[in-house]
Amino acid sequence: MKKTLNEIASFLGGTVVGDDQALIGSVRGIDEAGPGDITFVANAQYEQKLLTTKASAVLVSRDTESPGRNLVQVDDPYAALGRLLALFYPEEKEIPAVSGRAMIEEGAEIAPSATVYPGVYVGRGARIEAGAVLYPGVFIGREAVIGEDSVLYPNVCVYRRCLIGRRVILHAGVVVGSDGFGFANPGRDNLKIPQIGIVQIDDDVEIGSNTTIDRATLGRTWIQRGVKIDNLVQIAHNVVIGEKSIIVSQVGISGSTHLGQSVILGGQAGLVGHLDIGDFAMVGAQSGVHEDVKARSIVSGSPCMPHRTWLRAMSCVPRLPEMRTTLNHALKRLEVLEGQFSEHLEKKK
Amino acid sequence: MKKTLNEIASFLGGTVVGDDQALIGSVRGIDEAGPGDITFVANAQYEQKLLTTKASAVLVSRDTESPGRNLVQVDDPYAALGRLLALFYPEEKEIPAVSGRAMIEEGAEIAPSATVYPGVYVGRGARIEAGAVLYPGVFIGREAVIGEDSVLYPNVCVYRRCLIGRRVILHAGVVVGSDGFGFANPGRDNLKIPQIGIVQIDDDVEIGSNTTIDRATLGRTWIQRGVKIDNLVQIAHNVVIGEKSIIVSQVGISGSTHLGQSVILGGQAGLVGHLDIGDFAMVGAQSGVHEDVKARSIVSGSPCMPHRTWLRAMSCVPRLPEMRTTLNHALKRLEVLEGQFSEHLEKKK
Amino acid sequence: MKKTLNEIASFLGGTVVGDDQALIGSVRGIDEAGPGDITFVANAQYEQKLLTTKASAVLVSRDTESPGRNLVQVDDPYAALGRLLALFYPEEKEIPAVSGRAMIEEGAEIAPSATVYPGVYVGRGARIEAGAVLYPGVFIGREAVIGEDSVLYPNVCVYRRCLIGRRVILHAGVVVGSDGFGFANPGRDNLKIPQIGIVQIDDDVEIGSNTTIDRATLGRTWIQRGVKIDNLVQIAHNVVIGEKSIIVSQVGISGSTHLGQSVILGGQAGLVGHLDIGDFAMVGAQSGVHEDVKARSIVSGSPCMPHRTWLRAMSCVPRLPEMRTTLNHALKRLEVLEGQFSEHLEKKK
Repeated sequence: MKKTLNEIASFLGGTVVGDDQALIGSVRGIDEAGPGDITFVANAQYEQKLLTTKASAVLVSRDTESPGRNLVQVDDPYAALGRLLALFYPEEKEIPAVSGRAMIEEGAEIAPSATVYPGVYVGRGARIEAGAVLYPGVFIGREAVIGEDSVLYPNVCVYRRCLIGRRVILHAGVVVGSDGFGFANPGRDNLKIPQIGIVQIDDDVEIGSNTTIDRATLGRTWIQRGVKIDNLVQIAHNVVIGEKSIIVSQVGISGSTHLGQSVILGGQAGLVGHLDIGDFAMVGAQSGVHEDVKARSIVSGSPCMPHRTWLRAMSCVPRLPEMRTTLNHALKRLEVLEGQFSEHLEKKK
Repeated sequence: MKKTLNEIASFLGGTVVGDDQALIGSVRGIDEAGPGDITFVANAQYEQKLLTTKASAVLVSRDTESPGRNLVQVDDPYAALGRLLALFYPEEKEIPAVSGRAMIEEGAEIAPSATVYPGVYVGRGARIEAGAVLYPGVFIGREAVIGEDSVLYPNVCVYRRCLIGRRVILHAGVVVGSDGFGFANPGRDNLKIPQIGIVQIDDDVEIGSNTTIDRATLGRTWIQRGVKIDNLVQIAHNVVIGEKSIIVSQVGISGSTHLGQSVILGGQAGLVGHLDIGDFAMVGAQSGVHEDVKARSIVSGSPCMPHRTWLRAMSCVPRLPEMRTTLNHALKRLEVLEGQFSEHLEKKK
Repeated sequence: MKKTLNEIASFLGGTVVGDDQALIGSVRGIDEAGPGDITFVANAQYEQKLLTTKASAVLVSRDTESPGRNLVQVDDPYAALGRLLALFYPEEKEIPAVSGRAMIEEGAEIAPSATVYPGVYVGRGARIEAGAVLYPGVFIGREAVIGEDSVLYPNVCVYRRCLIGRRVILHAGVVVGSDGFGFANPGRDNLKIPQIGIVQIDDDVEIGSNTTIDRATLGRTWIQRGVKIDNLVQIAHNVVIGEKSIIVSQVGISGSTHLGQSVILGGQAGLVGHLDIGDFAMVGAQSGVHEDVKARSIVSGSPCMPHRTWLRAMSCVPRLPEMRTTLNHALKRLEVLEGQFSEHLEKKK
């Protein structure tokens, strides 16, 4: 497929600067791109590469100029890149089929337009809706539901009774609905609390590979609409994640903590249990959150504090030894001065 | 199944306050519960919900009162909840069977009362004992042993020769017995040290989804009786975890570190190799442990220190910039004073 | 298999001290070894065990002596242990075969000398080269390549078009090529950026269980020759890891960060995106790396700083409360002294 810059700009709602008839056949990174390619600059840090790239055209922000270069100026180059990639590289569609080598218990319900690969297991009472795709090694527990057009990559495991919405993407090795970590008298009896709740994942959620989401003790662990979760994240029992929140890799969220909508958690952050994190709050990478976080606030550090406080505090840490030495010297000088002054007063008597 | 409060109290060894003939059909969370439900308050933080819950009865501690409400007072409401859930929601038992669609090498030994789902693989010389349940996608390496009544959820992988005890629960995606991370001259030759030891997991252990436990270089990596491990934990070669220890999610334990019994490691803690962690020690979430920890002590922080020291130190961190400013001002005042005093002495001469 | 100490020393290029005809049948840890066993001391910390071990012989460094004990002195006892283990415990070789119970799409190409277990899935256009071993539950996406003599343990997933080199070892549950975490307007629109690049893994790489490596947005995520990665590591889109680097467990590397050769990252370290980490750099465990790291430098801490600075700074942290108290006392003394001095001057007037 080839498109002119004019067609591309029109598809993206952008403006061509330069040759609007230039033909584009593919989208490539700014270092690798050559003739016939379009590339992008979404980050001012990389703007200098405009001078050296061999691409035939570059997606840039509205205010970016680069004389002699073909540009497509758009409001948001990164978002435009996303739309352009979807145009040039549409997802391969499977011819829907339920493989005879899939293992389907009697009483499972599978829509005729679903794709079920060999090596999939579907328990009785489960329902696989229209257009869903289950890759090899996927396990669907009894009475679980996989919504329309959802894609479960290889070896995803959905335990019994869990509910997956529409257009959900679960990457390889995701586990939904394993038992929450609940034991009475930990370290002494370790008495297991049965985990009889479920996990509910709403529409348009995407979850990265090998992430684990535990079922609720009672009720549900709930991932709301449009949430995006990265790889190797741990979500404990009865956690609620509000709409459109973003959870970066290796975050851990303890039991019964609730996130509002559009919360962003940086990589490797850890949240203790029973917290409320307000709408649009942000938590820095590697932070340790031990108390509620207000809506629209930003916290960092372990234990966490307001982000700006943290920045200032962290700039002091490498200077602690110097501060300590200075303090000790000051003390000695103070002592000397005190001695001299008291000696002076003595003399006066 | 419905039970009167009287029957429930008698099963739990508790005391009814209120209508002991009230009929209970299910157990639900305090916010969701309604007529016919029993709920629980295990945490004083939630006691105020006693006033608003619509539940027909509430499991509470011995000293909790709430006039006009049906209560079942017990010694430990959370433990009682566990027993009640097991009563109301008994685990569904499979009719034992070895699926013809499981892949069993010749020379594997499988007890007739085991349940082996389609899509399971069992290597030669392996032994699956009575009552064990292997879900689809489980892999059992050669000469491995799975003890009586253990349950291995989908896609669990047990490498060759590893030993799993009785009543062990391995959640989906757990890996037992992959090679320890041992390379001579790291960064230079990266010469692989063959890992010829095993993993031994004793009775009544439960391990969370996608947790990984490496086989020993020589000898064994050993998870002792009653240990409970959460999701996404990493346990390196030759680690020993003492009885009844509790390892919270995303902890990492490096090679040859030994934990005593009833140790509790908070989420995302990291332990370097070759340490001894004493019985009943506790390690705070996100701690970095670089030295031995004595029995019954509590450490936090990265690098770790006694927990109380850490609490006090952390309360200073946000005030570091202020401390630094104060110190600099004090220095200036000291300098001024020194100058004035020396000038004063000069004048006297 | 039994070998004399003489034969062992000659195989390792070492020197026997003691009875060079002593017969050795196995290699065991220093605490477990007995008659007929050889053991090793690779760490000075364990040298005292030379006095008590029951082993018939011990691998030690060139300068270690222990009168009355049979020793094999070598340049590097740990490397020698590796070679000895490979000698005494050679890997079991499979008789190559492609199982009829594997699921192979038409148009996949599988070398006759490859071993493909039952329960493996290979997509069309994929190529499995000579001597490769695919364990049950492995998924190979379309047009992916698995190089000669590579071993993929159970439930490894290689997404479409990814390239795995020769003699690569992927432990159970590794995911190669899941979508990078790219969304425009995070927290607002969460517009998915299609991830159309690949992952390329070069020869002689080993990757630990349940580690995840995301495909590039455009171009490739690239793990170069001889890299060793531990369990549960997260590698984001477009990351490059230079030759022979060592990545310890639970590290997370964000998008487009590039590591030079022979970099060593300690456990649970986190790196933000778009960084350059120089050749032979080292990053301490649990560090948070937010800026470029120069070649051959060592950094620690979160946020990171030079390792020696960090060591000194961290030694101050437990003393912060004391520093604060000292500072406040000094201020008071300073105030008193200022008062007394100014009073003294007043009197003089």
